Amino acid sequence: MQRQTRAQRIASDIASQITEGILRKGDKLPSLREHMRLHCDSKNTVITAYDYLAAQGLVEARQGRGFFVMAMPTQTNCETQPLPYTRALDTTWMMRQQLVREPGHSHLGEGFPPVNWLMDMRLDKFHRQVVRGGITSLFRYGNRFGNASLREQLSKKIASYGINALPQQILTTYGANHGMDLIIRRFTQPGSTVLVETPGYYPLFGKLQLSGVRMLPVRREVDGPNIDDLNSLLIKERPTLFFMQSVCHNPTGTDISEHKARQILALAERHDLIVVENDAMADFKLSSASKLSALDQLGRTLYLGSFSKSVSAALRVGFIAGSEKLISELADIKMLLHIAGAEYAERTVDVILREGNYLRHLSKLQARLRTATAVALKILEELGAEVFCKPEQSLYLWARFPGIEDANELTRHCMKQGVMLAPGAIFSVDRNNVVPWTRLNVAYVDDPAFRASLKF
Amino acid sequence: MQRQTRAQRIASDIASQITEGILRKGDKLPSLREHMRLHCDSKNTVITAYDYLAAQGLVEARQGRGFFVMAMPTQTNCETQPLPYTRALDTTWMMRQQLVREPGHSHLGEGFPPVNWLMDMRLDKFHRQVVRGGITSLFRYGNRFGNASLREQLSKKIASYGINALPQQILTTYGANHGMDLIIRRFTQPGSTVLVETPGYYPLFGKLQLSGVRMLPVRREVDGPNIDDLNSLLIKERPTLFFMQSVCHNPTGTDISEHKARQILALAERHDLIVVENDAMADFKLSSASKLSALDQLGRTLYLGSFSKSVSAALRVGFIAGSEKLISELADIKMLLHIAGAEYAERTVDVILREGNYLRHLSKLQARLRTATAVALKILEELGAEVFCKPEQSLYLWARFPGIEDANELTRHCMKQGVMLAPGAIFSVDRNNVVPWTRLNVAYVDDPAFRASLKF
Repeated sequence: MQRQTRAQRIASDIASQITEGILRKGDKLPSLREHMRLHCDSKNTVITAYDYLAAQGLVEARQGRGFFVMAMPTQTNCETQPLPYTRALDTTWMMRQQLVREPGHSHLGEGFPPVNWLMDMRLDKFHRQVVRGGITSLFRYGNRFGNASLREQLSKKIASYGINALPQQILTTYGANHGMDLIIRRFTQPGSTVLVETPGYYPLFGKLQLSGVRMLPVRREVDGPNIDDLNSLLIKERPTLFFMQSVCHNPTGTDISEHKARQILALAERHDLIVVENDAMADFKLSSASKLSALDQLGRTLYLGSFSKSVSAALRVGFIAGSEKLISELADIKMLLHIAGAEYAERTVDVILREGNYLRHLSKLQARLRTATAVALKILEELGAEVFCKPEQSLYLWARFPGIEDANELTRHCMKQGVMLAPGAIFSVDRNNVVPWTRLNVAYVDDPAFRASLKF
Repeated sequence: MQRQTRAQRIASDIASQITEGILRKGDKLPSLREHMRLHCDSKNTVITAYDYLAAQGLVEARQGRGFFVMAMPTQTNCETQPLPYTRALDTTWMMRQQLVREPGHSHLGEGFPPVNWLMDMRLDKFHRQVVRGGITSLFRYGNRFGNASLREQLSKKIASYGINALPQQILTTYGANHGMDLIIRRFTQPGSTVLVETPGYYPLFGKLQLSGVRMLPVRREVDGPNIDDLNSLLIKERPTLFFMQSVCHNPTGTDISEHKARQILALAERHDLIVVENDAMADFKLSSASKLSALDQLGRTLYLGSFSKSVSAALRVGFIAGSEKLISELADIKMLLHIAGAEYAERTVDVILREGNYLRHLSKLQARLRTATAVALKILEELGAEVFCKPEQSLYLWARFPGIEDANELTRHCMKQGVMLAPGAIFSVDRNNVVPWTRLNVAYVDDPAFRASLKF
């Protein structure tokens, strides 16, 4: 393989956006000036790149108007039927965006708290204690359930939410997303049916698509999932799983009411449904809010936790809690796929949880979040935005702006000005839905670039 | 959920061994004395546990002879067809065994080098430099390809094997097993056909079973895969992937000849086959041996690497190298499933590779391996064992002992004496094969307990 020039790289990036349907026939490429400003490339480089694309017949230059996408490139792939991978391409586009941070851009759409909210945790401080926990096991595979000491801590941690689980009912994972995948692989096969919330956690949708699983949408309301949707889908479709979030719902920032939580559990009981409760935002709201796993004590619930957003996403440590039988089965699947978890990272989290100042870190984090939520709500009000729900503290707000019917358009508009939004359609089970809503990260709403970008 | 007593735990462990078919109808449970010795339980506890099982009709006591398995418990699961999960249960049993280390036991069957071979690496020493590499990114998700600096290092590392790959042709993974799973999920769907070596890497078999993929066996010989098997399966079955190991093959310890490597590549070219070269043992033999990925320059090969056995399995860092297009697609799948890799662990490996003494560590490791291999071969000769191939250095030897036709029997016999073997059938695509061979970890062959356990 030859080394590519920068122009070739730009051309092949754009070509793959066309292949993946992100850029469609008739779409205008960014102007030379826009591209130069966003990517700090020279004019010659950009012109060369666009010329490559034109030579391949992927774009055409229209006099004085710029470059426009012509058509999909011919599929060179010899596969006769689409592989599961191709089903999830929509999601990969959004996830790629989320992982890229262009310097100087504003990240309103980001799903992550600002790093300075986490940095007082000082991961490095704990290293000595991690090593003291037993040097030899720092070289080995851990056991299939994960580090035993951490699982004891997790057992105590979720007991404080009212969820009683023994350490053997807890399995460590590489973050909550890994937990979702293990559950999908335990309970589904291609063609299986599961229920998800819409709007809902789109990386979950990507995983279900990758596994060839049918997702049926249950509308998310201010006080939780719509019960009529749930009930009729349970009767008609007999799904085995329902993925949902009780507290600090992503993207809407809503919490479930206890009444609805109990209704869901009653339906789950009647229809032999397993409810997967994704509680990755638990550390952001130490509420006694109605977690289904607390009401149900893990009878028909699987509880997903994460430290990605409250300690460090770079450690990749999360967990699943559930019945002893299911956890053992999920531990087998984790072992089949990855042998074991990362003992090293798990011990780091264990030490952090054991330190008394973890709770202090969380209360600081929550205080910051409360302030940022209040500030964001105030700014959104000034901007005339409608907010789906006005929580006291939530990393996400779900908002729509006056005159905006399709948040995709708003997103494209703001992106040109370096402001990255997370448009509502991404969180919708049907990506073709026209959604006026946008998910906003409260930490970035006060960025002046955001307000400026809203001017049309 | 109530807390279980120790007796209940023992009973439920045995019950699940019966459910999973590890214990079969007519099998004798360990005697009370055996169980007490192996697990340090009191006699009363063991009697209570066996009584539970008898009360459930799972075992029966035969006067003066002990307890025997009666039948499979009734399947309480309401699923109408077996889920992929149940297909991989054989493998989970073996993998569980590999992850458990009973103190005082001898681990001849283990796939891992002794920890004291790795410990001079002193992971803790590197922590300060890991943090210096940029504190803020220690809290974030990394990019979908993995840490950029590590990928540069990896590019140089595999260049030293003659494999030329740019950093954008390298994707970090949570170990080589994670890499295999990403490839399986990119290229297969349930019912797809792939080729594997037999004997071969059994955790791979487990992953393929979990994904509902048909595995067809290509016999592994002393100088590599059997070419006739490969050729006829390619013609008849049109598989898309062939998983193989060129160097330090697991379990046989053999290396491929350059002649065979070239034959395989020619067949791959003719039949549009992708060859997945698992080179997790590369650090154990810095040979210029005929790696397919070096001969082919990643045209039709995907190259899997790992640091689990040469740095630390507790970090969970490995990688895939391949064409830029495939690596980008695999990066998307990794992102869909796990958002990103563990930046923290990847930076630790990066710092270790950058330190000049990494090569010193490897030459020490290899010297140890050479000595252990020589000692093991001498002992096996004294024991009258036949060794499949006598490499100068290999973590594994593939051996059969006089009078042994079924290594499963030998394994059961040795296990009673605290010596854990890895019987050949485990590495066979058809687990019902009667295989006389056993995989031995050279580091443990000189354990006197092994020699003692071989006496019948």
